[in-house]
Parts: sequence; C-alpha cells; structure tokens
Amino acid sequence: MAAEAGFIRNAWYVVAWDHEVLGDTVLSRRVLDEPLIIWRRSDGQAVVMKDFCPHRLAPLSLGRREGDAIRCMYHGLKFAADGHCIEVPGQERIPPKACVPTYTAVQRKRWIWAWFGDPAEADASQIPDTFSLDHPDWRMKPGYKSFPANWLLITDNLLDFSHLSYVHEKTLGGSTAIAEASHEVTENADGLRVLRRVRNTIPAPYHRRVGRFEGAVNRWFDYTLSHTGLFMMHAGVQSADKADDDHEGALLFHTCQALTPESPQSTHYFFAQAHAFALDDATVTESVYQSVANAFDEDLRMIAAQQRNLAAFPGEAMVPIGADGALTRYRRRVLALLDAQQNAQASS
Amino acid sequence: MAAEAGFIRNAWYVVAWDHEVLGDTVLSRRVLDEPLIIWRRSDGQAVVMKDFCPHRLAPLSLGRREGDAIRCMYHGLKFAADGHCIEVPGQERIPPKACVPTYTAVQRKRWIWAWFGDPAEADASQIPDTFSLDHPDWRMKPGYKSFPANWLLITDNLLDFSHLSYVHEKTLGGSTAIAEASHEVTENADGLRVLRRVRNTIPAPYHRRVGRFEGAVNRWFDYTLSHTGLFMMHAGVQSADKADDDHEGALLFHTCQALTPESPQSTHYFFAQAHAFALDDATVTESVYQSVANAFDEDLRMIAAQQRNLAAFPGEAMVPIGADGALTRYRRRVLALLDAQQNAQASS
Amino acid sequence: MAAEAGFIRNAWYVVAWDHEVLGDTVLSRRVLDEPLIIWRRSDGQAVVMKDFCPHRLAPLSLGRREGDAIRCMYHGLKFAADGHCIEVPGQERIPPKACVPTYTAVQRKRWIWAWFGDPAEADASQIPDTFSLDHPDWRMKPGYKSFPANWLLITDNLLDFSHLSYVHEKTLGGSTAIAEASHEVTENADGLRVLRRVRNTIPAPYHRRVGRFEGAVNRWFDYTLSHTGLFMMHAGVQSADKADDDHEGALLFHTCQALTPESPQSTHYFFAQAHAFALDDATVTESVYQSVANAFDEDLRMIAAQQRNLAAFPGEAMVPIGADGALTRYRRRVLALLDAQQNAQASS
Repeated sequence: MAAEAGFIRNAWYVVAWDHEVLGDTVLSRRVLDEPLIIWRRSDGQAVVMKDFCPHRLAPLSLGRREGDAIRCMYHGLKFAADGHCIEVPGQERIPPKACVPTYTAVQRKRWIWAWFGDPAEADASQIPDTFSLDHPDWRMKPGYKSFPANWLLITDNLLDFSHLSYVHEKTLGGSTAIAEASHEVTENADGLRVLRRVRNTIPAPYHRRVGRFEGAVNRWFDYTLSHTGLFMMHAGVQSADKADDDHEGALLFHTCQALTPESPQSTHYFFAQAHAFALDDATVTESVYQSVANAFDEDLRMIAAQQRNLAAFPGEAMVPIGADGALTRYRRRVLALLDAQQNAQASS
Repeated sequence: MAAEAGFIRNAWYVVAWDHEVLGDTVLSRRVLDEPLIIWRRSDGQAVVMKDFCPHRLAPLSLGRREGDAIRCMYHGLKFAADGHCIEVPGQERIPPKACVPTYTAVQRKRWIWAWFGDPAEADASQIPDTFSLDHPDWRMKPGYKSFPANWLLITDNLLDFSHLSYVHEKTLGGSTAIAEASHEVTENADGLRVLRRVRNTIPAPYHRRVGRFEGAVNRWFDYTLSHTGLFMMHAGVQSADKADDDHEGALLFHTCQALTPESPQSTHYFFAQAHAFALDDATVTESVYQSVANAFDEDLRMIAAQQRNLAAFPGEAMVPIGADGALTRYRRRVLALLDAQQNAQASS
Repeated sequence: MAAEAGFIRNAWYVVAWDHEVLGDTVLSRRVLDEPLIIWRRSDGQAVVMKDFCPHRLAPLSLGRREGDAIRCMYHGLKFAADGHCIEVPGQERIPPKACVPTYTAVQRKRWIWAWFGDPAEADASQIPDTFSLDHPDWRMKPGYKSFPANWLLITDNLLDFSHLSYVHEKTLGGSTAIAEASHEVTENADGLRVLRRVRNTIPAPYHRRVGRFEGAVNRWFDYTLSHTGLFMMHAGVQSADKADDDHEGALLFHTCQALTPESPQSTHYFFAQAHAFALDDATVTESVYQSVANAFDEDLRMIAAQQRNLAAFPGEAMVPIGADGALTRYRRRVLALLDAQQNAQASS
C-alpha cells in the first residue's frame, strides 16, 4: 500500500479551532475522508459526529443544535451528544439502530481534537501540550489553510528545510544559510526531532529592529514532527556572543502546526506562530502571522502543483538526494504504522 | 438492482411546458439520461428525438427547424419529424440507416409528454387529466426547477409530510398540525393515494384574509402519486362548521407536479399550483406560485444534500421509522416494476 | 483500437509559436497527453522537456531558467538543456538517474517543433516548409486556439468542405458553390492532397474590392493534410478569363495550420493565413486573420459539441455519406499507422 492511500487512525487529530465552534454552530468538515459535524453541548464540551442522520442519511450539518442535542431538520429526529436518538416525531418508540456514529472529542488549549481509533484507547492525556496557543507569556494569531495535497507531501516539505532557499527565496529564505546549516535528526517514539543551529549569521532586518541586535546572531530551530502530522518548533535569535542556553534578550518563537488529512488529496492545516517578546504590540503578532501565512501560500502553490504532477506522471519513480534523509525515515515509519494497522484489522 | 439505478420506461413522462417550445425553438433536454431535442412541426405537433445526427453524431440541438423538418447544421442532412433523412446535400441517394431515433410525443393541457417504452404500446388516452393547467375555472403560473437528486428522493419527500414541520418550519410548516394529522394511504393500480384531513385548526393568516374565515377551519390534502412520479393533489380550506363535502366558500387548490428523471442524479420538476378562487386577481396567482416555489427551494436544498451524502456514505443502511410507511410501499412497487421490466428485456 | 485513442509518435509536431517562448519564459503545455515545458538556451535553441523534476516530481514549469539551464524551484536541483542534472544544492554527488526526459526540438519559420518518436530517427530535414510564415513576399498574423476535441474530429472537418455551407453559412460559406465544386483527392506518402476549383463564380465583395475584379472569377483551393495533422493550402482568386496557371493580378493566399494533440479530448490549433497582395496594408492582414479566426470559432462550437455527443452516445454507429470519402481514407491510413506503431512496440 502506498503511504498516501491510508490514514493512521489510532491517533488524536485537530479538527477545529475553538472559535470555529461557538454557540449554536454546527460546523461541517471532512476529516480522514469522512464528512463530520462538530458542535458543543451546553457545558461547552465538543462533540464530533459523522454528518448523517441514520433515518434517511440527510446531513446533520443542515440540522439544528437544541441544547445538548442535535435535531435533523429533514424529518425531525433528535440525537443526544453520544449519538443516540432521543426523539422521533410522531412515534413513541425509538428504533435502537437510530444512532449517529460519534468520535471522542476534547478541547485542549484552543484546539478541538478527536480520536479516530478504537474508542477504548482514547486517552486525552496523550494529547501534546501546545502551550503557546494559550499562555500569558506568548502571543499568537490563529491560522488555518486548506491544502489541496496529501498530508505526506506537506510533511516532506517540513522535513527538508533546503526548500527555504527556493520556495521562500524572496520571503523567509533570504540567504542559503538556513538550508545549508548542519542539523541533527533523531527518531523518537512519536516521530522525528530535528535540531538546526545557524551560527554567526547576519540578523534579518526585522529581527535587528525588534531585537536591537548590534552584531552577528545565532539562530536555532528545534522541532518535532509526530507521525500523525503535529509539528511543534522552538526557534530563536540571539546575539552570537551569548551561550546557547542563555536566552536573556533573545527573540523566542514557538509554533504549533497540525496537519489533519481531509482526503487523500487534501489536508487541513491549523497553525500558529507564537512570540514571547513584544507581548503588548499587536502589530508584531500580526506581522509574525503574516510572514508565516505568506510562506505557507508559497508552499501551497508548489505542493499543490506537485500533487497534480504525481497524478500526471503516475509511473514515475523519484530520485533521492541527501536532503531526503529525514523524510525518508519518516515515511518509512508511517508506512510501518499503516501496515501494522492493516494487519491488526485483518486479524480482528 | 437499486431502484435509483433504473427508470421505468413504459410510461408517459412530461418533457416540457408548451411555452418552452415555440416557433422555431429546438429545445435541448436530457431525459432518462439521454440527450433529446424537442421541437414542433408547422401544425404545432410536438416532436421528440434523440439529439444526434446519424451521420457524424453532431447534435441536432445546434440544428435548424425548417418547416416540418430539422436540418443538421454540420453537413446539412435534413430529417423529417418521423426521424427519416430526407436530404443529403450533394447526393441523390439517402442511406436507409440515416435515421434519428424518435419518441412518440403529444401535448395535453400545456404539457408535452413523451412515451419512452415500446412504441406499439403508446396510448395517449392513458395520460392523466391535468385539468387545472388549462381550465377557465382555475388559475396557475407554470413552474420548473432542476433538482440535483434522484427522482425517488423527491417522491420520498412527497410521501412523508412529516418533513413539513422541519424543512418548511418557517414557511408552509407553521404548526406541526399538518404533519401530525392522521391520514389514509391506499394503493391503486397506478400508485398511491393519500388523504389527510386536519380538523378544527387555526387558518393561516393568508387563508383568513382571502377566505374571510372567522373561526376555525378544516383543511384537507388528497393526492395521488403515480409510479412514474406524477403528483396531483386536491387541497382545500373550509370553515370547520361545514360538512366535508360542502365546498361553498371554501378555498380550493389543485396542484399538478411531474417528476421526470434527467439522470440517476438529477430530476426535472414541472409544477403548477392552481387556485379556484380570486380568479381575476393576478397577485393571488403570483403569491400562490411563490409560496410553492419557495418551499421547493427548501426541499431542494435538503434533498440535494441528501443525494451528496448518499454518495459520501455509500455503505450506510437507513433506519426506518413509522412515517416511512408510504414511501416504503411506493419504493417496493417501483422496484417490482423495474425488475419486471428487466426480466422482460432479458427474455425478449 | 479506435483511432481517437492513440497518437502517432514518430513525427514532428508543432509545440509553440516562436513568440510564445521569449527570454526567460518557461512555457507549460500538455502535448500527446504529457505535460511539457518549452524554453530556450542562451543561443535561442528551443528545449522541450517533460514538466517534472526527477527528485520529487515538482513541476519545472514553476522553475527558473538560468542561462542554458533550468532550476527546479522546490529544492533547487539544476538541469542542463539535455536533461542531465548539473547541481544538487548541499551535495557534491549528482545521482546518475537525476535526469529530465527531453524531446528533440528545432525552430523552423516561427514554429517550434518537437519529435516524439525514436530519437535516433529525428530528422529535421523532414519538417515541411511552412514558407509563408516567414517570407518577404507574404504577410500573416499568427493564430492559436485550443479545441476541446480529439484532433481527428478536426481533420474530419478539414477534409469535408461540405460543412462550409452550414457551419459557415453566414461567414465563409455564402453560396453552396464551394461545397458543391468537384474536387480531386489523391493519396501520397504523407497524407492526402485535395484540389478543388470553382469556376465562373461571383467574387466575394471583399475579393472584388481588393482584387479589382470586374467580372466572374475562378477560385481554387489546393491543400495537403499530413497524417499527423499539418494542413497547408494554396488558395486563390483570379479573373475567370485567365488561364489556370496565370497568376498575374490574382489574389493569392497560403495557409499553414498545425493540429497537435493535447489529450485524447483536446487539440492545440496553430494557424496562419498569409496573403501575397497588399503587403503594406496591415488592415488586410488583420481582416484576413479575423475571417479565419471567426470561422474557426464556428468550427470549434460544432466540433466541441460533437465531441460531447460522442461521449453521450457511446455505442452509436455513424452512417457514411458520399462526402466522407476523403476523411474515411484518411482515418483508415491513420489507423494503419497506429496499428503498425503498436505492433512495433509489442515486438521491440
């Protein structure tokens, strides 16, 4: 099986920003190639259900939230947040099969997560700590983009910073220093960790202005990418004459990015780039957001074209280069997880 | 075979309103998943043909009506209304196979009907009497909508008035009285008849104003739905103190609605709601039309979404409820007719 | 195999006008159902490559021309005009398989041609002489249209002038004289030649004005159509009292038209209608261009509709008429060439 064809199901995925689901909102969103609805009970608890009424398969996304329940607006069947039907207009009896499949959902630090694997294994304590999304020492503006590409084309991109010099030549890239900096890749239980340090480089004009650096700076990028597409990175800029662990006066960034497969050819991209300086300057928050959002548009253009080209040249093999080391290891592991999942399904 | 996959062919279907085909018009329309042209001979007789020239398969809908014939505007072949070629430019001989397949067509009371079954069995006397489309005691405004859904999703809708309280909550629905009223369903040779009476209810503001009712009213809905999607209904509003058969002072409506499959996923919806009161008040005709047209838009939104959902959840079974009684009987009968048709084809 | 399903590969095809590829332009175009890029080396030599980088299949049409090379703007791999990789950022070693497939390309008289067959057989001397595209005695305005139809539907059209009276009834057609004129069809090694003479006819108003003809004229149309869709025609208008080989005072036209398959359902149409009179009157060049361009729009509308109808009526056979003689011979020959090509591939 090609890795692009499957989805790892025993995992927590981000399905929405908290502010996308307010009050009576019934949000409609396709995840892992399945139409879902996302809404909240009166107590705020997020609910994730398949987007159909079991009676005649009308979509519940055209339905109405009524307190802790959702009503299908075709023939009026009403469902509790656990998916069970609790009202059929015109009859007393509730058919036992009238049930909407649901997924375990929780909100953590502004993101709503859902678990798509065996419900017995859903353990919210495993959800990574995306602290910078909701923390008094950090500021960020929430971002979302829909990428018309398989999620693995995006993780490929995140695992090979050499693209910075070309895709982002006129924005983030600037020099080729970042792309060429040596880096360490380590594999852990959840995915990969990549640490990249760029020493004695000229600060970007923006960094010089905000950080008041007078001479050369060091920069670092320390990130993890989980096997289900969660990317979290500490990055920073500091005077070159300071020690690596001295963050006094440094510009510190933390980014949380979640890739959630929408279909085999499209991906939800939830992201935020938080900064730990200039906390009271909203223009800094906005400009940090814009620089990331613009860069993602550059990525999107290339990756969407790559996705179309994969369909146009279906038999064509790829030729690996040295920079592919991390993505090759990552894809091998994803494929192993998908194979294990398939074997588990076959034997159960 | 799923009922949605087939079409009952031994039947008369409405293919156009009379005013859609005037003068030299050559109307192009897909019916039972086949592109057709509809035009008229000089004497007004409607003609229905497949939309291709047998020479090089250019569409005749780009052709030109010439008196009682139609000319293909690619290489000029000319065809009589019976489909036979009567001219090939540049040669005397007419190839005997140069023939456009035609369907028997007749006009009755403003609708053009075509017969898609065995031509020997085409019997125009079987066409139902849609009297209110063209009668001095009735007024109506003709309506047409294209529904992006299989015709059986629309008959489902017509056979379960419980949707009135939800889909049409803010328009036709109002109270749940109509949906909850008891009704009788009887099966006859051509389809189903449903009679629903709502007694001692409050008149709608519109009915009160036009009908000058002072107290409670009775309402009734008496309709038939044929196995090929013709819906005809007598409906009325009368003072609750009158007998059921006393129509003196009542507001009487008669509706004719024809569902003609365009493809397995789309349906032509021809409709008119006629009224037998306020004959000289065009604003009444218009407002009766608008209320029906608005309600159909509400239906369309739900049914089109349901059609998309059936494709999104292909394996999902439906869970029947009590209100499905009529539609279940109807679908069972349609399926039996389709099976019989398939067996007849197999054995012939 | 249906002729529409294949492409003759051992052939030169026009892939672009010279002015479509200027300076740093990297033109993206699908030809024979394959995405290509077309660009130039510093010396002006045209280059035709498949539109993908062998590393991760990103499209080179998003790349950048750098002198005699092209760089992929995803991860920066650089390729020479012969397709070999000459730079991989961040590493010394060039993987030997990192190579972009290329096609032999040459420019001749304003058209860029590419050879899609066995490279060993590419012989630019076989490219036909499209002299009127670039000649001091002729003037033309270059034309291009994309036709949403298989190329053989367009050669059908070019081989049966009877369509002039119907498709071009109000433009080129005028009378039925041209369509009805006798003509000779001869078959040669490369395709068909058709010679059509219309004698003693009334000059078109435009011809009368430009050519100052006082009485009747003769007109002639002498064209060849190659088996890979190159159409070249000498046409003229001369006083009817002059001998056939006396061109003194005649209005002479020469047209070059190249059909290049884009996909089985679409075709690139490169064309120019040159005139050998009124060389210094740009309004004549423009009006000659417009009359051809308008006529092609009329053809396009009919042929695109025919293409859609072939899909709508897949099983329907065509009924031949006398006017189909030339196209039938042409298609038979194309089919033989495709069969021979398939057999050669099977045995190699």
